Amino acid sequence: MTLDLHDDVVALTRALCDIPSVSGDEAPIADAVEASLRKLGHLEVLRDGDAVVARTQLGRARRIVLAGHLDTVPIKDNLPTWTTGAGADEILHGRGTVDMKGGVAAQLRIAATVPEPRNDLTFVFYDNEEVASVRNGLGRLVRNHPDWLAGDFAILGEPSNGTVEGGCQGTMRVRITLAGKAAHAARSWRGVNAVHAAGDVLAILNRYEPRTVMVDGLEYREGLNAVNIAGGIAGNVIPDECVVDINHRFAPDRDIPAALAHLREVFAGYELEVRDQASGARPGLDQPAAAEFLAAVGRPPAPKFGWTDVARFADLGIPAVNYGPGDPLLAHTDEEHLPTADLRECERVLAAWLR
Amino acid sequence: MTLDLHDDVVALTRALCDIPSVSGDEAPIADAVEASLRKLGHLEVLRDGDAVVARTQLGRARRIVLAGHLDTVPIKDNLPTWTTGAGADEILHGRGTVDMKGGVAAQLRIAATVPEPRNDLTFVFYDNEEVASVRNGLGRLVRNHPDWLAGDFAILGEPSNGTVEGGCQGTMRVRITLAGKAAHAARSWRGVNAVHAAGDVLAILNRYEPRTVMVDGLEYREGLNAVNIAGGIAGNVIPDECVVDINHRFAPDRDIPAALAHLREVFAGYELEVRDQASGARPGLDQPAAAEFLAAVGRPPAPKFGWTDVARFADLGIPAVNYGPGDPLLAHTDEEHLPTADLRECERVLAAWLR
Repeated sequence: MTLDLHDDVVALTRALCDIPSVSGDEAPIADAVEASLRKLGHLEVLRDGDAVVARTQLGRARRIVLAGHLDTVPIKDNLPTWTTGAGADEILHGRGTVDMKGGVAAQLRIAATVPEPRNDLTFVFYDNEEVASVRNGLGRLVRNHPDWLAGDFAILGEPSNGTVEGGCQGTMRVRITLAGKAAHAARSWRGVNAVHAAGDVLAILNRYEPRTVMVDGLEYREGLNAVNIAGGIAGNVIPDECVVDINHRFAPDRDIPAALAHLREVFAGYELEVRDQASGARPGLDQPAAAEFLAAVGRPPAPKFGWTDVARFADLGIPAVNYGPGDPLLAHTDEEHLPTADLRECERVLAAWLR
Repeated sequence: MTLDLHDDVVALTRALCDIPSVSGDEAPIADAVEASLRKLGHLEVLRDGDAVVARTQLGRARRIVLAGHLDTVPIKDNLPTWTTGAGADEILHGRGTVDMKGGVAAQLRIAATVPEPRNDLTFVFYDNEEVASVRNGLGRLVRNHPDWLAGDFAILGEPSNGTVEGGCQGTMRVRITLAGKAAHAARSWRGVNAVHAAGDVLAILNRYEPRTVMVDGLEYREGLNAVNIAGGIAGNVIPDECVVDINHRFAPDRDIPAALAHLREVFAGYELEVRDQASGARPGLDQPAAAEFLAAVGRPPAPKFGWTDVARFADLGIPAVNYGPGDPLLAHTDEEHLPTADLRECERVLAAWLR
């Protein structure tokens, strides 16, 4: 099947949503996107697995990357799409409308309608964003074809309510394992209660005051939270082990080693087992292209608290921001829906700046 | 099969151990015990399920109850029994030697060798002591035939190193459920972390100083312990629930309502869900029969910390103690073993007092 990229952006969003593309099953939508981009004729089109890259080769001084993922979380009786209201109040409902086929549709429309942009453009549509990081299609492109991603500035079309959300916070998960000594609960003084020992760890978490940090003009809010605790094997046994998993979200003024050093200081005396980590990304809004784009959007930027794929661009040295239609708090909910006026506004802003 | 109750107590213990009788599978051993007791001729023998009761009806002024369970925990390549050493250093090894076929053998020997005791005697051998309380054979006799258990004093043959262990502590398990509010870990300030809230509960436990209490001349040691904690559903979600299960072991100067009132005071402001409870038993060593028996044993008594079936006799208003051969700390271990000299001493003490 081929998509008509010259169609209205709302119709195009619906067409994209109505091709089911839960993570791992993106082949049909990637095929459709690839065929539609090839048909335009003015773009070089590349493919790796279910990721499609298309770019102009106009020899411009600067290259802007527009990127979005093609997959969605599982469908919950919320496809095919439907609309309510009309005109300025029209709402498009259904899986993927917010996260993030609206953003993809706006970018595909630019591909079709801005054939001679003032900057060279690279479009990146990829698979498996909603699942484990190792499967992420953008991560795979970074490993297999970093040259396909080259650019001076990247716009990730993740929902951001039409505001530029700069950078993202990093995340790290560490495990603290408290050791005790098992004993029958009737003679508890013969044992050492590992769950009780976890009390000191929780006390540290309760005392901890997360930072609020200004980075490149945006205010980030950190967090340090136990996300799991487990201890005990039976109702009459003193637990000899208790495991606490702690998630730290850190502002992009710190890299992974700095964040880990901070945790080692906070939990001095405890052994920390790092289970998971991902660096954040500075907003980079002081970069010329980012500053220009921010002016074009005409709204004050906001920080991105959650980790997003902008960090992958940051790792390549490419300043990147999140900019897309839709409320990110509706992402993954069964009630996912998108005001079509926001979608049209997003396309208009992108086209005006890129044309 | 029939057991020879006139045989040596060590041979009888081995014969009992070598009839596998893991909880729920006591029919063969109960059949053998019942047949052997009937064969003696001087006892009234009764049966309920796999519990066997035998008693003299001599019209004596006082009646002493001797009780023991027939089941064991699962066999771990430690049957049939074997011995090491010889003479005064002989050790009998295998499942059930300590818990508690040694004690049962000594009691069966009394049934056979003391046909005209100075007190009437009731022997109670029962099933399913090592499993959930609702299946306990002695508890079933309490419900079905409380008259079979009538008496002035009871000796439970649980291993006690040949010392009289008086009474037992009570036990109660309560659950505290901390409620929070789920949120994405990247925006943790939108949620309320239920695992962090458990920190205050653990702090109470860490501050708590359990009582040491003299009851009827014996010193009991209480305990208050978290035996389980669980909270958290995913590495990127602020937990909205954390459950802490707390076990309280309380001295027999408190009954269940008093123990619960104490916990409500300790955990003021928290809702306590009682999950499990069993009252303790006062040692009752000031009762005439108990005081006499204590003098016959000739060793200072000790408190029983763990909950045992003496509490079931206490509930019937019958003073009861634990007295049997073997080290209770070896019970349930794969290395369960019993010095045969201790076994013979136990039989000798019982016979001397009951004859």
